[in-house]
Amino acid sequence: MTAPFKTIAVIGLGLLGGSVGLAVREFLPDAVTTGFDLAPVNRRRAAERGLVDTVCDTAAEAVRDADLVVFCVPPGAMSEAALAIAGAVPRHAVISDVGSCKVSVAKALGDALPGLAVIPAHPVAGTENSGPDAGFASLFRHRWCIVTPPADADPALVGKVGAFWEALGANVEVMDAAHHDLVLAVTSHLPHLIAYTIVGTASDLEDVTQSEVIKYSAGGFRDFTRIAASDPTMWRDVFLSNKDAVLEMLQRFSEDLTALQRAIRVGDGEALFDQFTRTRAIRRSIIAEGQDDARPDFGRGDH
Amino acid sequence: MTAPFKTIAVIGLGLLGGSVGLAVREFLPDAVTTGFDLAPVNRRRAAERGLVDTVCDTAAEAVRDADLVVFCVPPGAMSEAALAIAGAVPRHAVISDVGSCKVSVAKALGDALPGLAVIPAHPVAGTENSGPDAGFASLFRHRWCIVTPPADADPALVGKVGAFWEALGANVEVMDAAHHDLVLAVTSHLPHLIAYTIVGTASDLEDVTQSEVIKYSAGGFRDFTRIAASDPTMWRDVFLSNKDAVLEMLQRFSEDLTALQRAIRVGDGEALFDQFTRTRAIRRSIIAEGQDDARPDFGRGDH
Repeated sequence: MTAPFKTIAVIGLGLLGGSVGLAVREFLPDAVTTGFDLAPVNRRRAAERGLVDTVCDTAAEAVRDADLVVFCVPPGAMSEAALAIAGAVPRHAVISDVGSCKVSVAKALGDALPGLAVIPAHPVAGTENSGPDAGFASLFRHRWCIVTPPADADPALVGKVGAFWEALGANVEVMDAAHHDLVLAVTSHLPHLIAYTIVGTASDLEDVTQSEVIKYSAGGFRDFTRIAASDPTMWRDVFLSNKDAVLEMLQRFSEDLTALQRAIRVGDGEALFDQFTRTRAIRRSIIAEGQDDARPDFGRGDH
Repeated sequence: MTAPFKTIAVIGLGLLGGSVGLAVREFLPDAVTTGFDLAPVNRRRAAERGLVDTVCDTAAEAVRDADLVVFCVPPGAMSEAALAIAGAVPRHAVISDVGSCKVSVAKALGDALPGLAVIPAHPVAGTENSGPDAGFASLFRHRWCIVTPPADADPALVGKVGAFWEALGANVEVMDAAHHDLVLAVTSHLPHLIAYTIVGTASDLEDVTQSEVIKYSAGGFRDFTRIAASDPTMWRDVFLSNKDAVLEMLQRFSEDLTALQRAIRVGDGEALFDQFTRTRAIRRSIIAEGQDDARPDFGRGDH
């Protein structure tokens, strides 16, 4: 297809930025990509892997001819990254990003680049790996990308950003930024917080050794360790940026956990059974909608 | 190899029982297997799939010539299942099981079958599926099986039970039953309880629809839904049977979660970053020890 944008600048060349660059090369071969990363070692590795056509030594150089700028840095680094291109980016360029929180990021980008069209987006895709070696072209395939335009955004530009993500394989949904942050608080942020917590709890026991935790992790624990291995900087920023929604979801989770704790303490088997039965339906729907692998155990190993 | 036991009776023909039967056929072809399940529909399906050589109509018939009886029923059903064979099982037979809790199960089996050698065991393996269609011969391969003999057990019989599990592909560890219950409370029971809770929390929101939860589950939530789809009867019994250890671990988890909640509320990015950094090491160890798949995203999809 014809690329919705001719020249695309990717700022931040980790898992997400690298995957954007590789996906553009595969699915929009007519587009030209430039890229920049603050860390010289990441720029070197990005050039070796060919994550973008040209790796530049400054962000300003990378955006000079851009029609689309995609910020792929942690939420807390968006403001600084945007300020670094403020003098150099063409006035017609569309500014977007891949951040996991949308209200705070929209504000950071808008404040740093007044007068430019800011159309934030969030591809709900990723793996537990990070850095310039982690990206791959099919990361976004069959995943959802949520575009969160401001109320006064130009619908034509919103459409172009959506078309860009569809070209990379994603299904696109347009949503209000505040609602996005609430939805992701439950489907992504709370699960990560809980996974980080339980892995920490398991490391701190006196009566159970770390070696035992590792050996017997196939009983369920190992499923949590995957997302607890995600990029610490990014996740610190997510929790600080989407604080209110995360605290709200956490409060609800804690109440529900307390109710199950009580059922265990008083021996209320019926309450436990009822809760454990209704959760199966959600799993079935996730598999039916192609958002997870139906093979038992995620298809690990070779049954 | 020569089977450590010649005739093996499997009581309960679900995921675990079916896998034991199929694994014996594959790895101990000289052994004879019989089986029984309380549900006629499961017996029929077990016979169709050939989970054991002979599916019997009563538990007593299944154990008549057994050298080893393996109870593969939920922890809460162990006592009744053991009483059903009390008059029929040969005096020399070794009684074992695959239950996820060992103190309560050892007591249930010992009380129901006085004078017989009870050597409980727990293969730390499973999938989210259950029933007579779920089992497969390689379920135990490279997984740990924890044998928890009573203090006065005959070491020769403990060795035979260990040899049996090794023949099915497992690594065997001998452990005190009480310690087993503490270790599994953190590596298996607490993760399941938390997964069941968060999936329930996500289903009950007013501002976020169930359809949104399902669509955007790739952000982390879907990892939890796998283990929250496990057999409800078994997990109800686990939490009732291993109550003290589960409540102890839950208390620690809640304290740790409260500390992270506080860090988010006061904006303590350093505390969050520190916690999120140390959890990565555990993931690396689990992969290094072969207890999980190193491929990103558990190797889901086809990168």
